Amino acid sequence: MAVYTEVSDDELAELIAKYAIGEVVSFKGIAEGVENTNYLVVTTGGRFILTLYEKRVATADLPYFLGLMEHLARRGISCPTPVHDQSGATLTEVQGRSAALVTFLDGISLGRPGPEHCRAVGETLARLHIAGQDYAGQRRNALGHDGWRPLFEKFATRADEITTGLRDLISGELDGLDRAWPAGLPSGVIHADLFPDNVFFLDGRLSGLIDFYFACNDWLAYDLAVCLSAWGFNSDHTYNRAKGGALIDGYQAVRPLEARERTALPILARGAALRFLLTRSFDWLNRPINALVKPHDPMDYVARLKFHQSVRSIADYGVEASS
Amino acid sequence: MAVYTEVSDDELAELIAKYAIGEVVSFKGIAEGVENTNYLVVTTGGRFILTLYEKRVATADLPYFLGLMEHLARRGISCPTPVHDQSGATLTEVQGRSAALVTFLDGISLGRPGPEHCRAVGETLARLHIAGQDYAGQRRNALGHDGWRPLFEKFATRADEITTGLRDLISGELDGLDRAWPAGLPSGVIHADLFPDNVFFLDGRLSGLIDFYFACNDWLAYDLAVCLSAWGFNSDHTYNRAKGGALIDGYQAVRPLEARERTALPILARGAALRFLLTRSFDWLNRPINALVKPHDPMDYVARLKFHQSVRSIADYGVEASS
Repeated sequence: MAVYTEVSDDELAELIAKYAIGEVVSFKGIAEGVENTNYLVVTTGGRFILTLYEKRVATADLPYFLGLMEHLARRGISCPTPVHDQSGATLTEVQGRSAALVTFLDGISLGRPGPEHCRAVGETLARLHIAGQDYAGQRRNALGHDGWRPLFEKFATRADEITTGLRDLISGELDGLDRAWPAGLPSGVIHADLFPDNVFFLDGRLSGLIDFYFACNDWLAYDLAVCLSAWGFNSDHTYNRAKGGALIDGYQAVRPLEARERTALPILARGAALRFLLTRSFDWLNRPINALVKPHDPMDYVARLKFHQSVRSIADYGVEASS
Repeated sequence: MAVYTEVSDDELAELIAKYAIGEVVSFKGIAEGVENTNYLVVTTGGRFILTLYEKRVATADLPYFLGLMEHLARRGISCPTPVHDQSGATLTEVQGRSAALVTFLDGISLGRPGPEHCRAVGETLARLHIAGQDYAGQRRNALGHDGWRPLFEKFATRADEITTGLRDLISGELDGLDRAWPAGLPSGVIHADLFPDNVFFLDGRLSGLIDFYFACNDWLAYDLAVCLSAWGFNSDHTYNRAKGGALIDGYQAVRPLEARERTALPILARGAALRFLLTRSFDWLNRPINALVKPHDPMDYVARLKFHQSVRSIADYGVEASS
C-alpha cells in the first residue's frame, strides 16, 4: 500500500507523450495493491492507472497478464484494459521498471459483502472462465498444488511460532491432498486471487475486476474454491452458508459445474485454503520489523482449512448436490 | 506518503451521505503529504479529497486551516475548498479522527521548476498575502523565530552526528539571528511551507496551491524567504539567480516589498533556512529504522543557510535593490 518508485513530472510527460490520450491534468500515487507502484493519471482524454512493476512480478509474465486483460475486456469482462502507445505496445519502461498504462475502473471494493454480492462474483467468475477459453497465453500456476510442499519446506521448522500444531496440520494436509487431489478437471484461465479487494461495485452492482497478476492456467473449479474462502466466511471465520451458497449458485447460473467438479469442490477448497495459509504463514514469519504493510493473519486460513476438512459434499456449502 | 487509516465502504457511505455531492463512484487512498491520510473520492457530483488528520496536526488548529482555505478560495486563490455538509459543518470525524472533505485541484507539481514557474509562484504568494489580509483567524507560527532555540536544544548534543560542526553552525546562527532579527514588519497570513510539492501547474501555468497545514500569522516577507530556499536553488544546492530573482520579481509585481522588507530579506532568508535545517535535522536524528518515508537531507539546508549568510543585500538574489 505504498508508492515505491517516484515518477517525476518530466518522466511522466515523456511517457504520456507516447500515447494518444491528451495532456496530463493530474497525477497521484495511489495506495492500491501491495506489490507494485500505482499512479492515477487523469488526462484530457480520460482516467488511467499507471503501474510500475516492482520486483515481485516476473517481467516475463507481463505479456500474459496484459494480453489477458485486453482479451477479457474485448469479451465484455469489465477490467482494466491496457492502453496501446502510438507504436502499438502496451508494455513500457519507467525508471528501469516495466510499466503499463491501463484504463481506470469505477467502483469501490466492499468491506462486508452480502450474499447478493457473492452471487454476482460467482456469475462474473464463470463469465471470466468462459471468456478466457480462447485466450492463447499460457502460464502455469506457480502457487498450485505442485508448489505447496516446496513453499512449506521454506518455513516448516518455524511454523509452530504462529500456532502450536501448525506444522503437523499443514504436513498432514499436504499428505492428504497428495492422496485425494483430483486429475483432469476442466481447465483454463483463472484469476486465482479474486478477493473482495479485487472486485469493484457501483450502486450494489458488480462494476469490474482488477489485479490479474496471479492469473494463470489451472482448473476452473479451483478458482471457485479460492473465492469460497475469500467470500464465504463471516468475520469470525465461521462459514456463511448464505454467502458461500450464493457464490456457487451464481457461478452455476452461468457455467454449471460438471459432476466431477462438484465432487471435487471440497478437496479443491482445502487446497485453496492451504495455498493462502502457506503464503500468509511465510509472509508472517518473514515480515520486516516495523513494516508499514501489516501481513494478513495466517490464522484466518487455519479456520477456513479446518472448515473445509469437515465438508463431506457440495451440499454442505449451502447448495443442492444435484444443482 | 501512505494511508495510515483504512476507511471501509460502509464508513465512506455514511460520511458521504452527510454531503449533497451525489453517490460515490470511486475511492482510493492516495500518497499525498506525509502527515495525514488522504483519499481521492469521486462522486457523481465531482472529485474530492477526504483528509483524515493524524496525530501530528493539532485538532484545535483545524478550523483555522479550513476557514483559511475557504476564505482564500472566495478571494480567487486556487486552493482546495472545504465542502460543507448538510448541517453546514466542514469538520467531521471518521474513525475517531478529525476529517474534512475538500475539492480536488487539477495540476501536477514540478520536479524541476524553471524561472517562469518561480515568477508565477512569487505572484501567487503575493496574491495569497493580500487575500489573507482580512482573514479573521489567528495562529502563531509554532516554527517561528521563538521556536527555533527550544527545537535545537532537543537535539543539540547529537547535531554533529549529521555533520561535524553542525552544532556550532546552528548555535552561532541562533545567536546571530537574535541580534539581527528585525521587528515590526508587515504581517498577515502566510503559507509557511510553499515548496514545489505544494504548487500545482497545468500547461505550464500555476493551477493552485495545496497543504495549508503550516499556515499561520507571521511576517509576509518571511514567507517569501521560505520560498527563496524552496525554489531558488539548483539541485547541487547552489543558488540560481534566475529562479530566485524571478520569484522575488514576481512577488513584487503584485505586492512591492517595503524598503524595510527588502533590507530584512537576507536575514529572513537565513532564519527560514535555519527553520528547515532544524526540523530536518530533528527528523533525521529521530527517523524510525526501516522507515518507508525517507526524511529530507538536512545537508541541503546547511548549503542554503551558508549561502544566505554570504548575502549582503537583496541585489545578491538577482533583483535590483531599488526595484
